[in-house]
Amino acid sequence: MTAPDPRLSINQATLKHASLAEALRATADAGVQAIGLWREPVNEVGLDVAARMLADSGLRFSTHCRGGFFTIPEGAARRAALDDNRRAIHETAVLAAAGAPGSAAVLVLVAGGLPEGSRDLAGARERVRDALGELAPDAAAVGVTLAIEPLHPMYASDRAVVSTLGQALDLAAGFDPAVVGVAVDTFHVWWDPDVLAQIARAGRERRIATYQVCDWRTPLEADVLLSRHYPGEGVIDFAALTHAVMETGYDRDIEVEIFHADVWATAPDEAVRRTAAAFGAAVSPHLASALDSRR
Amino acid sequence: MTAPDPRLSINQATLKHASLAEALRATADAGVQAIGLWREPVNEVGLDVAARMLADSGLRFSTHCRGGFFTIPEGAARRAALDDNRRAIHETAVLAAAGAPGSAAVLVLVAGGLPEGSRDLAGARERVRDALGELAPDAAAVGVTLAIEPLHPMYASDRAVVSTLGQALDLAAGFDPAVVGVAVDTFHVWWDPDVLAQIARAGRERRIATYQVCDWRTPLEADVLLSRHYPGEGVIDFAALTHAVMETGYDRDIEVEIFHADVWATAPDEAVRRTAAAFGAAVSPHLASALDSRR
Repeated sequence: MTAPDPRLSINQATLKHASLAEALRATADAGVQAIGLWREPVNEVGLDVAARMLADSGLRFSTHCRGGFFTIPEGAARRAALDDNRRAIHETAVLAAAGAPGSAAVLVLVAGGLPEGSRDLAGARERVRDALGELAPDAAAVGVTLAIEPLHPMYASDRAVVSTLGQALDLAAGFDPAVVGVAVDTFHVWWDPDVLAQIARAGRERRIATYQVCDWRTPLEADVLLSRHYPGEGVIDFAALTHAVMETGYDRDIEVEIFHADVWATAPDEAVRRTAAAFGAAVSPHLASALDSRR
Repeated sequence: MTAPDPRLSINQATLKHASLAEALRATADAGVQAIGLWREPVNEVGLDVAARMLADSGLRFSTHCRGGFFTIPEGAARRAALDDNRRAIHETAVLAAAGAPGSAAVLVLVAGGLPEGSRDLAGARERVRDALGELAPDAAAVGVTLAIEPLHPMYASDRAVVSTLGQALDLAAGFDPAVVGVAVDTFHVWWDPDVLAQIARAGRERRIATYQVCDWRTPLEADVLLSRHYPGEGVIDFAALTHAVMETGYDRDIEVEIFHADVWATAPDEAVRRTAAAFGAAVSPHLASALDSRR
């Protein structure tokens, strides 16, 4: 078996039912060099313990998932959400420092959907901008980049009112790109007629904080949230998207993040093995043009 | 009970299991003044008979649904698809002539998804443009407007590679707006951060051939195709979208087209009654600014 691509990072969501210890072990044992973590399993063991475990694994840390969910109007619940995002920023800084050299301090932000009973999409989107304004100083203080993730428009009402890369870049505009960037996830943006132009724009504006890959296939699963597939199993043109991202000079790790019941039912070692194989076949051939001078 | 809004048109898909005769009768009996027809039930009775039935109903004809599905590469199947679209254009002209005064000769086009086994989204989109170029002279010859319908991006792979109103307008550019226009369907465009600007643009470019309303609600149904709801039952802001469309001077009928198993299980008279009530509550209040000088 060939070694996994050195730029592959396993997003922990791909190993949904693994503990942090299991996820770190399975990832490292497979020869994968990086991992993206989720807050819940990190907080299950406690941040300090998690940071030590990450350091011991020798893995790079690629992103922390996730902050956001701040579309609700002003009030106690909004304050609590913002405070929780501040904790997530802190976690991100600590974990990035604990990861192997080449780790990134990137907190992925999922905006949140329409507040219960609301039809005011424009208002919810404005509150995302307000939240970024509140959180940016906290992120800047500890060297963390907030990565706004546009989600597929089918999630606009219940999960993320940020629906296109162009919209995410508009929200990021005015902030220091080291502090507010975007997450480019193939599943969410592949359909967009403007996606290649917006990736190029994201590069010019130095906003691509993380590039994540997984595939789209129809029919969608009954729970559309769990419709993400291994790269190569669906219809996404990874050549075009990956080339566009590489052209911007993106030189960080590339995560595979899969939400799918079948993948989650796979043993972690096997899921990592399959992920590495899928990445090697569908994504690696398109990384050639990238000059990765970092490692 | 108040009379249905004079601008409401029942799209026949809302009465999925009704024959053409039943759909015409239920619509007219409820006091609704217009109907949009589907090709299958029309062809079930034959075009001439359908035209006579429509004329006898006294209803206006608002759209014919649907043409399109022309993303496949050159070859016999593509030729057959284009020929079928020519038949649909002819049907549209005949039915529009048979409908009551104020009828529109509009053929709604659903582009089609990626061809089997293809990942070439850009190529499929180019073939839509090519198809419009082939069909435009046929449509112009009989006074029919081809209405490109952008579908929600969740249908991009298997149903319509035209995913935004802006993209539809880009495709229409260069054609006479009397020949190639767009369909604005709230379900498909409500999420778009750019939708109000694109509706205004569509108005300036005189492209809005039909405005259709239904609602979006989550969780989506297991079959995402059947997730359309009565206006008012979901999260769409019909005030903002309808005002934007009215501001363009749109003065045609407004269709309600619902794909949903529960609606389809409703008796046609009841489904029309509910549609008229939902339209009256959610859409009619926002039509006030329109100067409808036609009727």
